[in-house]
Amino acid sequence: MKINISPSAIIESGVEIGENSSIGAFTILRKGTKVGANSEIGSFCEIGTATPLAENPQLVIGENCKLRSRTTIYAGSRIGNNFISGHQVVIRENTLIGDDVRVGTFSDIQGDCKIGNFTRIHSSVHIGKYSKVGSFVWIFPYVVLTNDPLPPSNNLKGVWIQDFAVVAAMSTILPGVIVGFGSLIGAKSLVKQDVPIEVLALGSPARTIKPVQKIRNNVTGLPAYPWFQHYTEGYPNDISLIYAKLRKTFIKDHGQT
Amino acid sequence: MKINISPSAIIESGVEIGENSSIGAFTILRKGTKVGANSEIGSFCEIGTATPLAENPQLVIGENCKLRSRTTIYAGSRIGNNFISGHQVVIRENTLIGDDVRVGTFSDIQGDCKIGNFTRIHSSVHIGKYSKVGSFVWIFPYVVLTNDPLPPSNNLKGVWIQDFAVVAAMSTILPGVIVGFGSLIGAKSLVKQDVPIEVLALGSPARTIKPVQKIRNNVTGLPAYPWFQHYTEGYPNDISLIYAKLRKTFIKDHGQT
Amino acid sequence: MKINISPSAIIESGVEIGENSSIGAFTILRKGTKVGANSEIGSFCEIGTATPLAENPQLVIGENCKLRSRTTIYAGSRIGNNFISGHQVVIRENTLIGDDVRVGTFSDIQGDCKIGNFTRIHSSVHIGKYSKVGSFVWIFPYVVLTNDPLPPSNNLKGVWIQDFAVVAAMSTILPGVIVGFGSLIGAKSLVKQDVPIEVLALGSPARTIKPVQKIRNNVTGLPAYPWFQHYTEGYPNDISLIYAKLRKTFIKDHGQT
Repeated sequence: MKINISPSAIIESGVEIGENSSIGAFTILRKGTKVGANSEIGSFCEIGTATPLAENPQLVIGENCKLRSRTTIYAGSRIGNNFISGHQVVIRENTLIGDDVRVGTFSDIQGDCKIGNFTRIHSSVHIGKYSKVGSFVWIFPYVVLTNDPLPPSNNLKGVWIQDFAVVAAMSTILPGVIVGFGSLIGAKSLVKQDVPIEVLALGSPARTIKPVQKIRNNVTGLPAYPWFQHYTEGYPNDISLIYAKLRKTFIKDHGQT
Repeated sequence: MKINISPSAIIESGVEIGENSSIGAFTILRKGTKVGANSEIGSFCEIGTATPLAENPQLVIGENCKLRSRTTIYAGSRIGNNFISGHQVVIRENTLIGDDVRVGTFSDIQGDCKIGNFTRIHSSVHIGKYSKVGSFVWIFPYVVLTNDPLPPSNNLKGVWIQDFAVVAAMSTILPGVIVGFGSLIGAKSLVKQDVPIEVLALGSPARTIKPVQKIRNNVTGLPAYPWFQHYTEGYPNDISLIYAKLRKTFIKDHGQT
Repeated sequence: MKINISPSAIIESGVEIGENSSIGAFTILRKGTKVGANSEIGSFCEIGTATPLAENPQLVIGENCKLRSRTTIYAGSRIGNNFISGHQVVIRENTLIGDDVRVGTFSDIQGDCKIGNFTRIHSSVHIGKYSKVGSFVWIFPYVVLTNDPLPPSNNLKGVWIQDFAVVAAMSTILPGVIVGFGSLIGAKSLVKQDVPIEVLALGSPARTIKPVQKIRNNVTGLPAYPWFQHYTEGYPNDISLIYAKLRKTFIKDHGQT
């Protein structure tokens, strides 16, 4: 089990790299970075970028991760196992990302964010500071999670995208808004108010249209949501049980709205 | 006729570079890459990135191309002559791009796409997987071509932007939608339904407003579309004949809607 | 006072670097570049990129600047003191930027633009060619300043964002439009017509809602605009006097609409 480091990479002192991992050409690992085993860091990355805003000088990246070229990750963040990033992704300080998360090309996670497990953030998504994104969430291209109710201000309020929610392309979520468990936000919506659980909401401003369970696949005629009924690639086999369990907890803690 | 390769560039074995071409500093050419003559590849590019999704391990880039810094192009694609990319452009696998195409800074072509000749894609455009973009097309900044009717799913349906169509900034085209030959989509539109040929459509959802021929240049008073009546920079001299010919074929094959 | 240049950086002949400045790993400074004292240029930058479009072959960057990794700045531009860029920022030729300006990650300034002092452009903002952005302006993520009234054409008309104006996330400003002094454009607006001074405008198309002075902070109950009443971080102590003075000049020169 060896580590494969490109001769042109720059590895600062005190960096820890797990067995069987590889570091690409022209990539820089800053001090305080710890990369788990079996991970692959592409070319031109800068990992562990120092900033006075970092609550701690460490950056921990899990096992079996794949960072594509030109990924930037700041010190002070912690990323789980099986993480995959696209090209040019930027993840700033004090961000906690769970296991099995993917973040696409040109996405920008601005810092002080929390992302659960099995969440997939597509390309060119802007996750404003203090955003909270649950587990099994999908966020599609050009979605912006804002955070400033009186721009510019220092009174930032992050968005909360709850577990299993889906936000379609080009939607904007206003500061402090909650997108409910298992809900679907239609493309190009402007979400100004909290969205209840398991509904389709869309428009500018977004309005609740119907329960997601009433959305049907117009080819098969079957219900299309919750979405794991038709899409399970890369998820645990018992995803429907996980859904039921998380749903129950959510309703107990937060009610249905 | 010599080839000019920066001493810091990394050229893997089996790469072919045409006469008179140049490779910038810190640029990586992966095996299987073939670059035509008189082409200029800027700094920090990664060209020929391997992926198991590539239908073949080759990447062919034509003659007289200019790839700006930090361009990423995957294996399995084929790009014609006179191609120009902006900075940080990403083009994934199995994408066929014709001659004389330009793709601007921060644009992302997600793979399995087809783009014709003389098409110009501006900055920060998202071309979803399976998109089909014709010839002489213009796509302006922050346009998103989506592909998933029931997100997330595996049943992706690419958009088709037909020849000579223009999509103005910040518009979103929903999955499987066809934007008609020579049509113009106004800025910030949400296009949910097919747009017929040679019309102006705009709004959320986009509606057909009028034939493009009725749009006038309010300075000259002359008809402004088809657009080559007022803009011909870099196009063949006989662009109006090409238009007439392609239009005829289109109507024969697809009708006027 | 020494200059700290990474051994992997490429500094072309005739580059001038001020005292106490640092140049990051794998960064390229092209000839004609002049960097002021106490400035920090991160990794993977390309600074002073040549282009035939540059009106002059020089690039001047002021003192005490911080360019984050992968910043690209073309020859022919001039950037003041205390400038900060995010990652992957692109600034093209013939652009004049004042002092104390910040431009966020993935923002793209397309060239021939003018930006005043103390202006903050957030992430993923597209500043089209010929845009004019005043002083003390705020532009939030995914805002697009367009420039082509009859796309594609050569008759480009830049947008003008006047001093102290704020443009919230995901708004699109149409070609030639003026956003008035101290005004606020709501998120996800499409601004088709000039916006008068000191008003809130929003929607698609944007309409004037009320004077900004009537927007209240719903926590404190105090007026929230002009915004420096609640946000002053990094601004001169006499910002309210500057506002009053610039406002007076503006009204004298341009009237209130």
